[in-house]
Amino acid sequence: MTDAFIKQYLMTAGPTPVPPKVSQVMAEPMLYHRAPAFIEVYARCLERLPRVFQTSNDVLCFAASGTGAMESAVVNLTRAGEPALVASCGKFGERWAELCDAHGAATRHLEAGWGSKVEPDALDRALSDSGARTVFTTLSETSTGVVNDVRALAVAAHAHDAMIVVDAVSALGAVPVRQDEWGLDVVVSGSQKALMCPPGLAFASASGEALARATEAAGGSYYFDWQRTAAGQRKDPPDSAFTPAVGLFMALDVALGMIEEEGLDRVHDRHRLLGRAAREAARAHDLELYGPEDDNANVVTAIALPDGIDGAQVPKRMRDRFGITIAGGQGQLKGRIVRIAHCGYFGAFDVIVAIAGLEMTLRELGHDLEPGAGVAAAQRVFSEAGVPAGAPA
Amino acid sequence: MTDAFIKQYLMTAGPTPVPPKVSQVMAEPMLYHRAPAFIEVYARCLERLPRVFQTSNDVLCFAASGTGAMESAVVNLTRAGEPALVASCGKFGERWAELCDAHGAATRHLEAGWGSKVEPDALDRALSDSGARTVFTTLSETSTGVVNDVRALAVAAHAHDAMIVVDAVSALGAVPVRQDEWGLDVVVSGSQKALMCPPGLAFASASGEALARATEAAGGSYYFDWQRTAAGQRKDPPDSAFTPAVGLFMALDVALGMIEEEGLDRVHDRHRLLGRAAREAARAHDLELYGPEDDNANVVTAIALPDGIDGAQVPKRMRDRFGITIAGGQGQLKGRIVRIAHCGYFGAFDVIVAIAGLEMTLRELGHDLEPGAGVAAAQRVFSEAGVPAGAPA
Repeated sequence: MTDAFIKQYLMTAGPTPVPPKVSQVMAEPMLYHRAPAFIEVYARCLERLPRVFQTSNDVLCFAASGTGAMESAVVNLTRAGEPALVASCGKFGERWAELCDAHGAATRHLEAGWGSKVEPDALDRALSDSGARTVFTTLSETSTGVVNDVRALAVAAHAHDAMIVVDAVSALGAVPVRQDEWGLDVVVSGSQKALMCPPGLAFASASGEALARATEAAGGSYYFDWQRTAAGQRKDPPDSAFTPAVGLFMALDVALGMIEEEGLDRVHDRHRLLGRAAREAARAHDLELYGPEDDNANVVTAIALPDGIDGAQVPKRMRDRFGITIAGGQGQLKGRIVRIAHCGYFGAFDVIVAIAGLEMTLRELGHDLEPGAGVAAAQRVFSEAGVPAGAPA
Repeated sequence: MTDAFIKQYLMTAGPTPVPPKVSQVMAEPMLYHRAPAFIEVYARCLERLPRVFQTSNDVLCFAASGTGAMESAVVNLTRAGEPALVASCGKFGERWAELCDAHGAATRHLEAGWGSKVEPDALDRALSDSGARTVFTTLSETSTGVVNDVRALAVAAHAHDAMIVVDAVSALGAVPVRQDEWGLDVVVSGSQKALMCPPGLAFASASGEALARATEAAGGSYYFDWQRTAAGQRKDPPDSAFTPAVGLFMALDVALGMIEEEGLDRVHDRHRLLGRAAREAARAHDLELYGPEDDNANVVTAIALPDGIDGAQVPKRMRDRFGITIAGGQGQLKGRIVRIAHCGYFGAFDVIVAIAGLEMTLRELGHDLEPGAGVAAAQRVFSEAGVPAGAPA
């Protein structure tokens, strides 16, 4: 087959595929950020974002990668020398510790282990006599597929009068984040995962109490200063402290409109189904799922590779021969797992394509499996649910 | 005329108009940032950027507004309590002082006044016994149109063993920046001005000496840490420390290709001609030019409004009635000037449109002027130069 017909499928957990109508709007002429035409887009994004976070907070927006929003939380909430507690279970959780260290916090690090969840009891013990005023943790740990029960972790944090800051970069829009109901003091996220936009926008939704604490800690960053950004966004009409990433807001506006049209609950249902189909497909081949089996782990499915398979070869062959881009393992899981994402602009047949490609790749690499068995398992999940989700029965 | 035929003209100094082929590439499918298809784009951008800065440095890239790159310079080069010297002549220069203050530097602020240039002698005096190891200044001060002689300022800084950090956000790609030849220790810029891309990418080109000093100062920021970003970019293949703004790099690659195709000298010549035409048009109406008359002030032309004109009305009417978006004054110049940009994707007839619209607007607001006189002055400049630049004679 010529290269042009090795059609390309993006199955990574960020950047994720961008819906055509989101892509198209970025090809429209550039707007001045203080012109009414942009202010309308910007104001609509600011109004729509809190609905996805399920919060009454203002969602503060930065031109940055997700890590920028994470750093904003650290600089606005911690002070050098003061204790901070990081509760991690993978690469992105560990980034919280690096960030706290970089800013001179007295970091205590509760490591649940890659593939495990952070247990509320363990957090409770770690907080005892820690003096930490802030807990930093992860909702969806993209490196392993684990989704933590941040609601329970919030209860543990609050029992010790600590605030909880949740990295929901890959989770927001894929799995429920009920920020206000669950008492999540701060939730950070990014544009390039389930929000279906290109990378480059980062978000921090901070409660009033968290914003008030930011005033004390002020001075850690100018660009990521929450008060400065909040003051701009609260103006009438809203204004950005610095030149906003105009094209990305144009994209976000369209993407948030799509989420509203589908309905947030149905968005989460779709992800739940995609996650279940991917897990059933792996089970059909007796491939071990990395991370606890969990009906909430619906952002990325991490599959342990069979013994004897050269792990680095799997994503490479899938991409080069079949045009399917999945991610391998990171850090300590390099070469040991593959990760199939289904967060954002994904439907039933995206999972089927990824599973079919994985089956063909593993066979080519010498692993004996029944071709189509994983696909069939995924098909059964979709059919039983009467899907493609939302399609006429 | 119906709204659809009030065609839109973006004449602001950021965001600036994006060429159609740059816009179009952002409508292409998203790429995984570690896939060969993106790495090729990324590597080409990293190779092309230094040519625009005229440097052998690596140009460090951040997903951020230009202010993010400015903050990166402050956090990597200064330490709390140490003196830093800011030499400003407008709003963006003053931002350096705010940044230095935010990071606890003992900021000394040489203010040349809005509309004036920073004089090398004044900088020399300000540096005497200041103890400052770093001077922060501006090449093109977008709030007034003034372009500083940073080459001479670098000589003054170096005479006091201070490094010089230059904000070239609106200048780079419009007026010459010969970083290495002029001994500019650090030059920062952004994507949304003369680089003809949407906002969201920021750049810092730091000399080896500046990077070495960054190691001492490390700790001010994780996201903006130069060493972390440099280490990623220097890998083979290059890697970004955090998820890069993939779509903006796709755009930047096309835009840098356009600059190379035109040739950097010709790019600067075009801006010189556009600036001269805008100034001659203002002079034809006896409208005062804000900032010193300067054949190098070719980024934005700031024109003082006649007495009796309500300054806030001018950009508003030009936009609402004629579809032409120009900027008014900022800060202390609010309501007193208009600013017509010509940095980036601008040709001769963009200036003519802006001048024609300004003439019509000022007449409507009651200022007595000869319609077309400014346009004619601009036409003469272009005709004498045998332009549109680069067109057949």
